[in-house]
Amino acid sequence: MSRVLVIEQREGEEKTLIQKHIFRPFPNTRRVVIDHLQRLKNFLFRIGDDWYFLFALGVIMALISFTMDFTVSKMLNAHRWLQQELGGNVLLRYLSWIVYPIALVAFSTGFAQSITPHSGGSGIPELKTILSGVILEEYLTIKNFGAKVVGLTCTLSAGSTMFLGKVGPFVHLSSMIAAYLGRMRTSVAGDYENKSKEHEMLVAAAAVGVSTVFGAPISGVLFSVEVMSSHFAIWNYWRGFFAATCGAFVFRLLAVFNSEQETITAVFKTSFKISFPFDLPEMFFFAILGVVCGLIGCAYLFCQRWLLGYVRRNSLTSKLLASDKPMYSALVALLISSITFPESLGQFLASRLTMKELLTSLFDNRTWWTLSQNSSLDRSPLVDPNNLWLEWANPQFTIFGTLAFFIIMKFWMFILATTLPMPAGYFMPVFVFGAAIGRLVGETVALLYPEGIAADGIVNPIIPGGYALAGAAAYSGAVTHSVSTALLAFEATGQIAHILPVILCVLIANAFTQKLQPSFYDGTIIVKKLPYLPRIRSRDIDSYKVNTEEFMNPDIRVLPREAGFEDVLKVITASDDSEYPVVDNTESQVLVGTVKRPQLIHFLETHESHERAGPTEKENLSEGNLGEACSIEPVTFQLSTWTSLHQAHHLFELLHLQKAFVTKYGRIVGQVTRKEMKKAIEDLANPK
Amino acid sequence: MSRVLVIEQREGEEKTLIQKHIFRPFPNTRRVVIDHLQRLKNFLFRIGDDWYFLFALGVIMALISFTMDFTVSKMLNAHRWLQQELGGNVLLRYLSWIVYPIALVAFSTGFAQSITPHSGGSGIPELKTILSGVILEEYLTIKNFGAKVVGLTCTLSAGSTMFLGKVGPFVHLSSMIAAYLGRMRTSVAGDYENKSKEHEMLVAAAAVGVSTVFGAPISGVLFSVEVMSSHFAIWNYWRGFFAATCGAFVFRLLAVFNSEQETITAVFKTSFKISFPFDLPEMFFFAILGVVCGLIGCAYLFCQRWLLGYVRRNSLTSKLLASDKPMYSALVALLISSITFPESLGQFLASRLTMKELLTSLFDNRTWWTLSQNSSLDRSPLVDPNNLWLEWANPQFTIFGTLAFFIIMKFWMFILATTLPMPAGYFMPVFVFGAAIGRLVGETVALLYPEGIAADGIVNPIIPGGYALAGAAAYSGAVTHSVSTALLAFEATGQIAHILPVILCVLIANAFTQKLQPSFYDGTIIVKKLPYLPRIRSRDIDSYKVNTEEFMNPDIRVLPREAGFEDVLKVITASDDSEYPVVDNTESQVLVGTVKRPQLIHFLETHESHERAGPTEKENLSEGNLGEACSIEPVTFQLSTWTSLHQAHHLFELLHLQKAFVTKYGRIVGQVTRKEMKKAIEDLANPK
Repeated sequence: MSRVLVIEQREGEEKTLIQKHIFRPFPNTRRVVIDHLQRLKNFLFRIGDDWYFLFALGVIMALISFTMDFTVSKMLNAHRWLQQELGGNVLLRYLSWIVYPIALVAFSTGFAQSITPHSGGSGIPELKTILSGVILEEYLTIKNFGAKVVGLTCTLSAGSTMFLGKVGPFVHLSSMIAAYLGRMRTSVAGDYENKSKEHEMLVAAAAVGVSTVFGAPISGVLFSVEVMSSHFAIWNYWRGFFAATCGAFVFRLLAVFNSEQETITAVFKTSFKISFPFDLPEMFFFAILGVVCGLIGCAYLFCQRWLLGYVRRNSLTSKLLASDKPMYSALVALLISSITFPESLGQFLASRLTMKELLTSLFDNRTWWTLSQNSSLDRSPLVDPNNLWLEWANPQFTIFGTLAFFIIMKFWMFILATTLPMPAGYFMPVFVFGAAIGRLVGETVALLYPEGIAADGIVNPIIPGGYALAGAAAYSGAVTHSVSTALLAFEATGQIAHILPVILCVLIANAFTQKLQPSFYDGTIIVKKLPYLPRIRSRDIDSYKVNTEEFMNPDIRVLPREAGFEDVLKVITASDDSEYPVVDNTESQVLVGTVKRPQLIHFLETHESHERAGPTEKENLSEGNLGEACSIEPVTFQLSTWTSLHQAHHLFELLHLQKAFVTKYGRIVGQVTRKEMKKAIEDLANPK
Repeated sequence: MSRVLVIEQREGEEKTLIQKHIFRPFPNTRRVVIDHLQRLKNFLFRIGDDWYFLFALGVIMALISFTMDFTVSKMLNAHRWLQQELGGNVLLRYLSWIVYPIALVAFSTGFAQSITPHSGGSGIPELKTILSGVILEEYLTIKNFGAKVVGLTCTLSAGSTMFLGKVGPFVHLSSMIAAYLGRMRTSVAGDYENKSKEHEMLVAAAAVGVSTVFGAPISGVLFSVEVMSSHFAIWNYWRGFFAATCGAFVFRLLAVFNSEQETITAVFKTSFKISFPFDLPEMFFFAILGVVCGLIGCAYLFCQRWLLGYVRRNSLTSKLLASDKPMYSALVALLISSITFPESLGQFLASRLTMKELLTSLFDNRTWWTLSQNSSLDRSPLVDPNNLWLEWANPQFTIFGTLAFFIIMKFWMFILATTLPMPAGYFMPVFVFGAAIGRLVGETVALLYPEGIAADGIVNPIIPGGYALAGAAAYSGAVTHSVSTALLAFEATGQIAHILPVILCVLIANAFTQKLQPSFYDGTIIVKKLPYLPRIRSRDIDSYKVNTEEFMNPDIRVLPREAGFEDVLKVITASDDSEYPVVDNTESQVLVGTVKRPQLIHFLETHESHERAGPTEKENLSEGNLGEACSIEPVTFQLSTWTSLHQAHHLFELLHLQKAFVTKYGRIVGQVTRKEMKKAIEDLANPK
């Protein structure tokens, strides 16, 4: 084979020589130019200086986000126009209302699934698993990219009917691009170094994903850190901030160039009164809102996890999901779109509004109740962009009725929508849902105290929009177990006056869900059975008392350093581990290193041939025992039998370990993998 | 001795018995009450549930912060009143102007230094060192507390003359209280667990320190994380947020109760126009501002480090600082306060304003240049709280002149003030200084484009206050190497409309200083020679290539497991390490664990006595060799000779290691401490 290679090389050289003769007018200039280009490449693509990549990542994601928003808004306008043009015929209007989302959702499912099954869902749970150190090969390949972009555009074009968002898929898209760009970089020797660079880029990519959706650089970084990682290195901060700022800046810049806005401002700009945003006693109602959001969040997380499991268990749905995913999506879309038809139940669900309009209307700085007392509530055939709240008004039902109905209906409709196997984000709907809860509480408070709370004569009316802001942050924070949604709400609306009530609300809501339920992403990880290390909660103080000895796997196969063919063969056939511990000698059992399976197989091959080979071939083959023939890798990290579960867990998370050997006075006595660790943590929560 | 103890115990019991007879009316009720109290204590002070502590920490710090602000404002008012009352006599006014700060600064220095020398300076560099794993015993003792509180109050009462702040000392105070509260908690067995709890509390305490000064919960957490840690665990997030929110809430609540404000709002509330905060082309000027802030930041960091070193080297100042610290402080205060006397140079330095007024005036939403064209600039004897900008106006010098003069003079005056050995913070002055730079740039832009930049007929005048905001965030971010000062600026002013230009500005300024200078805190650590691990910059790709073998210390003393009296004695007299590696046997040199020095000393004592003891006493003494007599602690972590410097550094930072042994195929071959690591990193930066 080596001869063939040599010939090929020569042929290559000859070809180059021939090409050289064909056209080469300015040899010196060319050499200088090529030299400079090479130097430029070396300068730009050094492993240390990766801000070019971060810049490119931010700009690319901003372009994709803007283009997608643009396309989606055109599609939604087309649908709205169609609804108007159809005029008198109710049946036709109904058909056009339902066919549009059904077709889009079915296409999205079919297209994405036909390319790769990894493109469904939000993608954050899988990315979280990857960032915890597990390798999911297929997940970051660039072929997912097209599937996710096209699928997501269709999903979003189905509008508020399907009630789905784009944050999660954008995080996924962004990390795909980061992984792809990462390959361009000059790589250094060393597995560890490349991995750590890759990890750094993925963390930055997640930040870009969030920030290009909301135009929010700071909370993009913080939210992605909170949701994705268990640990965060400060030296990664600037990476995330830089990339996220580039992304957010270009994203908002494009909106200005497209004449949507005069200058760079927030995505969901609000105009609350900043001189007196809220009165002191209102903190009490904000706290109540926090409790409400926390409790609804718990109920939602429980139902969501249950339904996701039920759909997989139930024979009908599991069969549909296995063989005919588009059909399942179409059926769900039919049910949901029939309910949201604006001339039946949809009129109480503000279903003519897009997701963005829903959020803008909920953050309105006026009091709907006061408005609805003073104006006619006749619904025009067109949505009035300056009075979006009219969609929520109903003479009989009142705004309280529509808000409550919206909350109840969207609760189960959204849970149903999350079971669809197509690219879709679940953060934005949660955010809107929380805003509706907040608005309902805020309008109620405004009804109770029409003149404001303070009794000293000055009228400071209550702003229900502030409650909507707090509700959105608290509910989305509770569901995702994160605090930085508070900041996201401020960055997205461009106002920060409500900071203390909002963060109070978020903390209270978080206290409930963190105590009672796993987060939305952890829940999905559990249901999808992804390899993941559960968190030890700080109140599980028993984790300090359980020692490694009690949960390690003592059943390990070791190889002595002087192992020969027979020993290696015996061990390698007995299990299919990827690496084996090497001990000093069989008696002492002192751990000296590990050896990889391919090394052992190579050892067996050469050894085998050695026995069978003729005397002349023998010289080319390696000799000696394991210690001489294989490269033994050092063990930098080992647990002792006295290491507590808490400490072991902490180290596994910190160092992204998959496996660690347990030693006692240098002797190897067992091993701990994520499986044993997981079981030990579960036993802690449910003691026998 | 044991007999004496027994007798003492018996006496104690007898005393209790006697006391029991004296007064015990309701034995059952008492028992029940004590029982309940004990149960309550167990319930509250469990190690897992520490939110009570966090709440207490936040509230205590808020009370201290508010009380201090209140006292300082009274002191400053008294000084202002004195200045007015003195009327016609210039000499008297001058004397009262300079005596006040001189006396306060000298007292602050003398008082704080007389109690403990650790109370000087900001305290953040020391805390940063502690959080990196180094133990500085004295630094967190509660006796520092009084020294720091009293000293800081005096420092702040000296007003804007001394140009010092309170953030750093508050972080220090907060961590002292956290360490004190931590002792109340039920401790668990295990060194590791207690340490990790302590660490968690200290991180939260740092957040509380920042948030109770600015009333800024989110950026309090982020800023303290960025400045203090190299790594951050997400499960600590809620701790920091909760404590910081409690602190900020109570702090702002007290302001409302004290009728300073109608409701809870930002500390330095601004009122920029939110509908059109800035025009798109202004991003260019914001970028220039970032460059300016970055360059001035570099110059400042260089000069500051130089002067801090020079003051220690110079014979006169070093003698003064060693023997007569208050005198040194008084001399510096004399110089600075003479310059700021409002009737000489002080009139160009806005020296009648307090720190808070300085910042409020710089964040003014009006354009000073326009204002100064349209009003009389005669200075009234009183500061007009609604027109603070008048202090900056001067008919001959113009506002540009005063701003430039302020920047130049405060540059060196502040550097001089940082050499004073008294409790003082350095963040707030840096923030104000940055705001002045921003204001100067903003006013210049407003002068160049009086009608706004856009040429489409609509007049959108430029807001120089926005530039002041960006300048404050960028300059303070550059000096401290942090990005979250952007968020701090928004939280402190209550407006977030300028988010993109501000964060752009901060990132640009950071790029300069991070490339060229160590941060303010790292610089102080270097000058004070605190044990600290320098950061490896991501462009130092050679750190991937240097192996542990090249920089480890191969000169180690090992003990074999069967070591007897002679071996131990030889090793223990040859060095004074705190722990020694134990190997399997002298030939194999396989590392099996470590043994602590006190254990060895105990071993020597018992062994020694054993040799000398009579035959009857022998039975009470331990026998055998090291492996049997001492508890050998397991080594969970070891480096291999092939571990790269980058990876070793990463692990030292992650695990807060002080020392690690280096092994090769299980054999111990050397050790790496922070000293060797530091040297290796320095060699990397300055290759021979």
